Amino acid sequence: MLDFCVVPLGVGVSVSTYVAECQRVLVERGLSHQMHPYGTVVEGEWDEVMGALRECHERVHAMGAPRISTSLRLGTRVDREQSMQDKLSSVERLLKA
Amino acid sequence: MLDFCVVPLGVGVSVSTYVAECQRVLVERGLSHQMHPYGTVVEGEWDEVMGALRECHERVHAMGAPRISTSLRLGTRVDREQSMQDKLSSVERLLKA
Amino acid sequence: MLDFCVVPLGVGVSVSTYVAECQRVLVERGLSHQMHPYGTVVEGEWDEVMGALRECHERVHAMGAPRISTSLRLGTRVDREQSMQDKLSSVERLLKA
Amino acid sequence: MLDFCVVPLGVGVSVSTYVAECQRVLVERGLSHQMHPYGTVVEGEWDEVMGALRECHERVHAMGAPRISTSLRLGTRVDREQSMQDKLSSVERLLKA
Repeated sequence: MLDFCVVPLGVGVSVSTYVAECQRVLVERGLSHQMHPYGTVVEGEWDEVMGALRECHERVHAMGAPRISTSLRLGTRVDREQSMQDKLSSVERLLKA
Repeated sequence: MLDFCVVPLGVGVSVSTYVAECQRVLVERGLSHQMHPYGTVVEGEWDEVMGALRECHERVHAMGAPRISTSLRLGTRVDREQSMQDKLSSVERLLKA
Repeated sequence: MLDFCVVPLGVGVSVSTYVAECQRVLVERGLSHQMHPYGTVVEGEWDEVMGALRECHERVHAMGAPRISTSLRLGTRVDREQSMQDKLSSVERLLKA
Repeated sequence: MLDFCVVPLGVGVSVSTYVAECQRVLVERGLSHQMHPYGTVVEGEWDEVMGALRECHERVHAMGAPRISTSLRLGTRVDREQSMQDKLSSVERLLKA
């Protein structure tokens, strides 16, 4: 699972067109993802997720951003499968209890 | 706007009880927030948001975690107001266009 | 212990003048810190460290950046004291062993 | 340029053996890198850097950590070459001026 927030430099303060382009990459590649107000969470195998991240950087550069600084959280686990929805549900169950 | 993901160390692999406790802090303090699969986004004035973050750390330590490593993104802007919903809406408009 | 990387938006691709200003904040406040190629690590009590971070944001805005997106790692522990040098030394001992 | 901090879960509070193993990966692969108190900065081409990151995760799992949460900053630029030392030097020049 990867949570990333792409910050293009040298293109002004509005970054929504670049964020939208990254969303398109995830849709085109058929990756399960969820946008939130300060980034996007995507889940999948390592190569799939990292390939998508790389294409995001390439497209944002191609759109005119000379420099990008992306902040990420990368979670891997080998003990069991856990989807994005599983993670949210386990917290929500505790909050309702 | 602050996006944070609290990772307690020394308490095993399941962190959902700690995440739930942090959600309670935000609710108790009446802060606008949104949980996602790899963190929580909260918006408000600096002191409000940082006070809540500090209480999260204090409570997670009090629950038994000897060590915490939190990853954060902190966004401030002085040009205009922009809510969490505004940020999402501006991207969604572009995706529909 | 806090590791932070301030990214000003809307001021071009060169961020070194803003990073230098943040270094001055840490020096003026007498906080123990260490700059590295992708951020700065600072150690101290919560209020000291967060006060310095806030002044960094305020000064970078005052220098003309309308928007800032900062990426942070925040580590707290209640089991024992550990300085920045302690952390490095414990890894270096293992590498030499 | 990549700054990363691997946090293994489910293996106690001491993470230095895991950090040391990641250092060994970088040395074995001949990648230019610099450890600091809250992570490690590495520079190189995308595939080299991401391949090393992946091997770090694989080895830390193999050492017994069922779950890993890594915090990263990833910087790419297409306007010019800039090494880790260049970044530090440009700030240091400003501080001395």
